[in-house]
Amino acid sequence: MNKEIFMNLLQAREYKAVRSILNVMNAVDIAALMEELEDKDLALAFRLIPKDKAAEVFANMNSPMQSYLVEIFTEKELKEMLDEMFLDDTVDLLEDLPANLVTRILESVSAEKRRQINILLNYPEDSAGSVMTTEYVDLRKTTTVAEALRHIKHTGIHKETIYTCYVLENRRLIGIVTAKDLLTMDDTMTMEELMETEIISVTTHTDQEEVAKLFSKYDLLAIPVLDTDGMMVGIVTFDDAMDVLEEETTEDMALMSAITPNEKSYFATSVLDHAKHRIVWLLVLMLSATFTGMIITHYEDAFQVMPLLVAFIPMLMDTGGNCGSQSSTLIIRGLALDEIHFSDIFRVMFKEFRISLVVGIGLAIANGIRLLIMYQNPAIAFVVGCSLIGTIILSKLIGCTLPILAQKVKLDPAIMAAPLITTIVDACSVIIYFKIATMVFHLAV
Amino acid sequence: MNKEIFMNLLQAREYKAVRSILNVMNAVDIAALMEELEDKDLALAFRLIPKDKAAEVFANMNSPMQSYLVEIFTEKELKEMLDEMFLDDTVDLLEDLPANLVTRILESVSAEKRRQINILLNYPEDSAGSVMTTEYVDLRKTTTVAEALRHIKHTGIHKETIYTCYVLENRRLIGIVTAKDLLTMDDTMTMEELMETEIISVTTHTDQEEVAKLFSKYDLLAIPVLDTDGMMVGIVTFDDAMDVLEEETTEDMALMSAITPNEKSYFATSVLDHAKHRIVWLLVLMLSATFTGMIITHYEDAFQVMPLLVAFIPMLMDTGGNCGSQSSTLIIRGLALDEIHFSDIFRVMFKEFRISLVVGIGLAIANGIRLLIMYQNPAIAFVVGCSLIGTIILSKLIGCTLPILAQKVKLDPAIMAAPLITTIVDACSVIIYFKIATMVFHLAV
Repeated sequence: MNKEIFMNLLQAREYKAVRSILNVMNAVDIAALMEELEDKDLALAFRLIPKDKAAEVFANMNSPMQSYLVEIFTEKELKEMLDEMFLDDTVDLLEDLPANLVTRILESVSAEKRRQINILLNYPEDSAGSVMTTEYVDLRKTTTVAEALRHIKHTGIHKETIYTCYVLENRRLIGIVTAKDLLTMDDTMTMEELMETEIISVTTHTDQEEVAKLFSKYDLLAIPVLDTDGMMVGIVTFDDAMDVLEEETTEDMALMSAITPNEKSYFATSVLDHAKHRIVWLLVLMLSATFTGMIITHYEDAFQVMPLLVAFIPMLMDTGGNCGSQSSTLIIRGLALDEIHFSDIFRVMFKEFRISLVVGIGLAIANGIRLLIMYQNPAIAFVVGCSLIGTIILSKLIGCTLPILAQKVKLDPAIMAAPLITTIVDACSVIIYFKIATMVFHLAV
Repeated sequence: MNKEIFMNLLQAREYKAVRSILNVMNAVDIAALMEELEDKDLALAFRLIPKDKAAEVFANMNSPMQSYLVEIFTEKELKEMLDEMFLDDTVDLLEDLPANLVTRILESVSAEKRRQINILLNYPEDSAGSVMTTEYVDLRKTTTVAEALRHIKHTGIHKETIYTCYVLENRRLIGIVTAKDLLTMDDTMTMEELMETEIISVTTHTDQEEVAKLFSKYDLLAIPVLDTDGMMVGIVTFDDAMDVLEEETTEDMALMSAITPNEKSYFATSVLDHAKHRIVWLLVLMLSATFTGMIITHYEDAFQVMPLLVAFIPMLMDTGGNCGSQSSTLIIRGLALDEIHFSDIFRVMFKEFRISLVVGIGLAIANGIRLLIMYQNPAIAFVVGCSLIGTIILSKLIGCTLPILAQKVKLDPAIMAAPLITTIVDACSVIIYFKIATMVFHLAV
């Protein structure tokens, strides 16, 4: 939907047309459209959204917009909205709202819902407990298919998902039945006969990233969440898992580029916040890079005699940095996808060593030919070539080892990426280079 | 499941125990376990998997294992397996098998299935057509809820998903009904009354990455695929979309680290293939880095007089590279998540300009204090500080602009990441630095 057309219709008070448009649009798209409106237009436009869609649109809006709307809603509007919203979306909303609006919302929901919300709000951030919902379909093992279908018909409409149903016995989860089973199996079969007993579950304290990984590994629609006593307390649904995966990827990419991760989008983050998220790592890396400078200063006499030596420093540093970050990226991704584990460390190192030999010799030859043509100086081609091979081997070994070690000591492997690796490799490459050069050319240091 | 225990039981011919273990394990975990077995053990172990689970285990295995099994299966075994497998998994299998085994499989399936497979195999790689399945539940608009439920009970068991049903009229898709609607609504309601008519669909030629993005944007379970005439031909299910998202993220990360993307996992790729995927970009970047070297050589006379100047080159180059890659990563991610578009280019540039002013002045002050303490030389602190600010502004502007421009000319923005940006920024930072230094210190070039 084109924003301008929509605005014009709204300002021309063509409410019937606006309503028709909103009627055929998807809730996600309406939310995106609403986010572009001015506050006063927003209030008006929001009230033109069909009732059955308003809660879904609201759940998809960003939090400043949600705050604004909660503030201007009448008691009745707020109550209607909250009745329609799923519990986990309500909790998401509360986590981002200012305190006075939180109170207003808690006063508008039923006592039972308020109790559940308060429990969910108490789980640690980024835990399964904080993203789960307590609304799910529970059945007993003696229930038949026909009874289960009747039960869903009566209670299912308010559950976020009814496609995975949980068979409980004394609040313990003993089996899982899918809606597909219920829809395709004989009416007289009992849950006990139908249910899957290989259950994949998490606890309320499982990290949300671990939860999301289970979804993509096992292609799940929902995962049951158990408390520390093994009692079933809720489910995480796949839409939240997809959001978590997206968030975690963004976070990894930020970390890998020396940025402190931040949940807001690019434009929603202010200039000062952007600067704050970037300057910390830059400072650390800048000060580390001065070591490389100090090493170079140490070899001042060498390049005073042979200034050409300086010309190859950038090429060596860049190639070392790139080689190291190639290895670290592949390992970081392998760790994230559970393809690589700590026990593989020597296997990885041996593999990277062989790769770096092939790559190093290849690059040294290519570069050697170039140097011979440009400078007709076999000695310098030899020195640069040997330095290249040494740098590449070292940088690939550093690049593959550090992320694995980081994970072992419970750090995010993603911080061992390009920027940090580059800084470490820089110093190493300069040392290798000048050691070889001073030896071959018999330069005094 | 511990591999050693499993192997011991298998070798001790404790088939009953093996079978019990396989009976309670998840198909995905069994596939992972099977992948660690020797070929001869694999054949034996695979035949001990419960019949109803074997096809799912098979679909989750890697292609060398699948090839091996297809080769040793009897006609009967192969036929049973293929009957149980979903159509899209069968097509995935065929895409990776050697030609002789493909023929064997096509001979084992029914004529109708063969026809459908052949159609699916003809869609371009990475298109919606190539990942879709043609097995879905279709209904008519006059069908009632009760009739639809009966229809699903008879035909649904062989469909990959029955949770989204499609209302067709002359093979055209006119509405969508969810299983939740069918399970919770009145038996006498018709599809026409129930169906959602705001349909999100793709065509057979839509890129799989675009398809996957729609899943996470709209939290879909399945998306209908239309042919160029607007006729419904299949659906893509969310499990495939999740795989695509994972694949595309891995690909982006590889590109961002100057690696040619590769679908195989780290250990499944040979040393030579690893080297091949990495050396191309390294070569390009290495040769580009020699420009920076040539610029430095140009200022040889300057650092002959003042060798200390060389010591700050690595710090400037690294900081420039890091700043540039911070900006490019955020922009690449923003483009991938559809948060940033080409029309935002000036807004982005202005934002990055302001951020780089804050970051640049901050770093220049920190570095200036360090230089004053270490060298008691305000002039060098001034030169390095100004160069830092200049380098940071330039590198952030380059880092934010290139990915946007790349997308505009239909290149993957991910190639405009750290490695390339670093190489470009290196040359710029050296020029800025020596220009300022020669000016301030009145050095001849």
